Amino acid sequence: MESLTNSEDQQETFVVSNSWPQTQESSKNQKWKGFGGFVLVHAGAGYHSESKAKEYKHVCKRACQRAVDQLKSGALAVEAVAAALVELEDSPFTNAGTGSNLNLSGEIECDASVMDGKSLHYGAVGALSGIKNPILVANRLLMEAQKGKLSAGRIPPCFLVGQGAQDWAVSHGIPPCPSEKMATKFSLSAYKRNKRKMELAEKMDVGHNEAKRRRQSSGNENGSGCLDTVGAVVVDLEGNVAAAVSSGGLAMKHPGRVGQAAHYGCGCWAENANDMISYSTAVSTSGCGEHLIRTMLARECSSAMQSEDAHQALLEAMQNKFISSPFLASEDRVLGGVIVLRCCRCVEAQPSQNIQGLLVEFLWSHTTESMCVGYMSAQDSKAKTHISRLPPGTVPGQSLAIEGGVCRLMSPTD
Amino acid sequence: MESLTNSEDQQETFVVSNSWPQTQESSKNQKWKGFGGFVLVHAGAGYHSESKAKEYKHVCKRACQRAVDQLKSGALAVEAVAAALVELEDSPFTNAGTGSNLNLSGEIECDASVMDGKSLHYGAVGALSGIKNPILVANRLLMEAQKGKLSAGRIPPCFLVGQGAQDWAVSHGIPPCPSEKMATKFSLSAYKRNKRKMELAEKMDVGHNEAKRRRQSSGNENGSGCLDTVGAVVVDLEGNVAAAVSSGGLAMKHPGRVGQAAHYGCGCWAENANDMISYSTAVSTSGCGEHLIRTMLARECSSAMQSEDAHQALLEAMQNKFISSPFLASEDRVLGGVIVLRCCRCVEAQPSQNIQGLLVEFLWSHTTESMCVGYMSAQDSKAKTHISRLPPGTVPGQSLAIEGGVCRLMSPTD
Repeated sequence: MESLTNSEDQQETFVVSNSWPQTQESSKNQKWKGFGGFVLVHAGAGYHSESKAKEYKHVCKRACQRAVDQLKSGALAVEAVAAALVELEDSPFTNAGTGSNLNLSGEIECDASVMDGKSLHYGAVGALSGIKNPILVANRLLMEAQKGKLSAGRIPPCFLVGQGAQDWAVSHGIPPCPSEKMATKFSLSAYKRNKRKMELAEKMDVGHNEAKRRRQSSGNENGSGCLDTVGAVVVDLEGNVAAAVSSGGLAMKHPGRVGQAAHYGCGCWAENANDMISYSTAVSTSGCGEHLIRTMLARECSSAMQSEDAHQALLEAMQNKFISSPFLASEDRVLGGVIVLRCCRCVEAQPSQNIQGLLVEFLWSHTTESMCVGYMSAQDSKAKTHISRLPPGTVPGQSLAIEGGVCRLMSPTD
Repeated sequence: MESLTNSEDQQETFVVSNSWPQTQESSKNQKWKGFGGFVLVHAGAGYHSESKAKEYKHVCKRACQRAVDQLKSGALAVEAVAAALVELEDSPFTNAGTGSNLNLSGEIECDASVMDGKSLHYGAVGALSGIKNPILVANRLLMEAQKGKLSAGRIPPCFLVGQGAQDWAVSHGIPPCPSEKMATKFSLSAYKRNKRKMELAEKMDVGHNEAKRRRQSSGNENGSGCLDTVGAVVVDLEGNVAAAVSSGGLAMKHPGRVGQAAHYGCGCWAENANDMISYSTAVSTSGCGEHLIRTMLARECSSAMQSEDAHQALLEAMQNKFISSPFLASEDRVLGGVIVLRCCRCVEAQPSQNIQGLLVEFLWSHTTESMCVGYMSAQDSKAKTHISRLPPGTVPGQSLAIEGGVCRLMSPTD
């Protein structure tokens, strides 16, 4: 796959960093047995300093490799997407699983969810403490729900929170993990720094009235490293899509706060093509949870992807359904990012060769300063990674960047 | 307002109990000072026995009165809808607040949410214990979020769960309530009965494999009294809409399970008319949480309501986006109900009188055996109540009933 170039094209209120389209056929590996697919991951929309860029790219690379290993062994999209998330959660640099932001009480509470485009089932956990890989609990909820009703006809849950979620996980064989093992030097020092900043802000506000105090405060979440929720979207060679997302949430959030990563339609979305929709689509979002919830961004982007021009559709969705959304009219800066893939069966030039093709279009877009992504097809020897940045001089939360590519997957039909 | 008649009209796969349209002008009260509006409430889609019908109707009546009292004193729709919910939660007969279903551990954990169509803000709590009126916490979250950022630029939460939600409520002046005060004789005896039923079901399954056991189990939630989540939709005389929902969740649910009542877009939706949409709409849902979540029924019904014919639009939404939804393809019975209102400014016959009119269309529809509703305009002396039932012989979860009415609100413009 070619590395992406940034041909920045300034438009009225936003910036398009457009490297679309790039097409490549990925079916040259003759040994390949018919298993395969494509994965796109991200390590957060937020701010990725040059000094840490290498680490973020590394973890994206490893996450892609994990998903591709699964796909090559015949796993479905939903299994591969969970495998990618485990790698992203395990990195101490991302705000998910190990290394998650601490909440106001100095504790880690994670949100995660996964959606299977084939069954349209969904599993989610919110404000979950003491589990190393929240995505595995969300994934297990999804799998259990697919099995049908519980004893005495009880409907299995799709969303569990807090202590109940942890107990359910442990009772399903997922081991507990002491919270102190999930905190890192970085997350602990960020907590101390944020706490001092809060105390200082509150001290300075003494004498001001509440409303004034609130309006005057400037965002710390808008700064560095606080928004790097992780996510992945996958398509397997059968054309099934899946999407997942995992987050430690905003730094210094109130205990019990649940962000978009656990919200149906907000953190991730996956929907196979069917009688009503032409394209299979998968979306994962990152950024300020409340903005992503109130705009239901994952589902909006998925719906938009049924338009003919994927790039234009995502651009319009990010502009009209996010930056200029009436749901966020009172917000001066709307912070978020998405990764998107869509695919459809494609007509082959040589039908006599019994070759089936899958055209995969993949994109990312963000209004945050930067977003770190990685992508890989099962036929690639290693993942490509990239840190997409808003061009200098543009305002995060008011401008956007959009980039992407195309990949064609081919498989013998017999 | 006329009481509704059931002119049942059997159609292919569903039943339409249609009393639409009924129009009434509600501006006869000459003393009225310009404050007013309309409220529609429900005490759950589920099964309402004839013996308890009176109680359910009573609580709906009181809830309508509470909302109207608020509207008459100049409250906005969002305040009135919360007032109605408090009354519905306080009834020991409804599955919300006091009298909520107990979970597997014999505890009460409530979900509730509220949406303001004017600000498009949203507040929700999930798996909340020890608070008498969960809706008041959801409403307070909404109000706090409208004030803007917290100290040090932190974004206020819109969704809190579990212990964190309870702590937040108490720190915001909402008193804790011992859980045993919220349990009722009925909820405790239902818990014991359900527990015995579960134990029996599990004993009978010994020797069967897991998959077989699951498929053979028949639903207890599909039976009596387990689905009666409550909700309300309100329009005030300025045309602002609001919607709210509150639920104790499924009986014998796993601790930490969060249902549709706390899910954005699933439990309630409210959106004032704007440049893009012609009608203000408000929706509240009830029924099997997982079905309502996965179909995002509140938001789907709200979108549908932008079509010209409200009745036909709701009928199609319930049929295509719920009963026949691809998201619930594996479910044999899809259980839920909605209350809906939409309104628009109407052209007056006598513009010289400086009269502004608001045309309010209100509907309810359910696939459950019955649904208890109440409605009242600020000009009515008391609320109308009604238990809507599927006609005998139809199958709950596969058929639907739909009913509604029209009300015209008039106010002097000066």
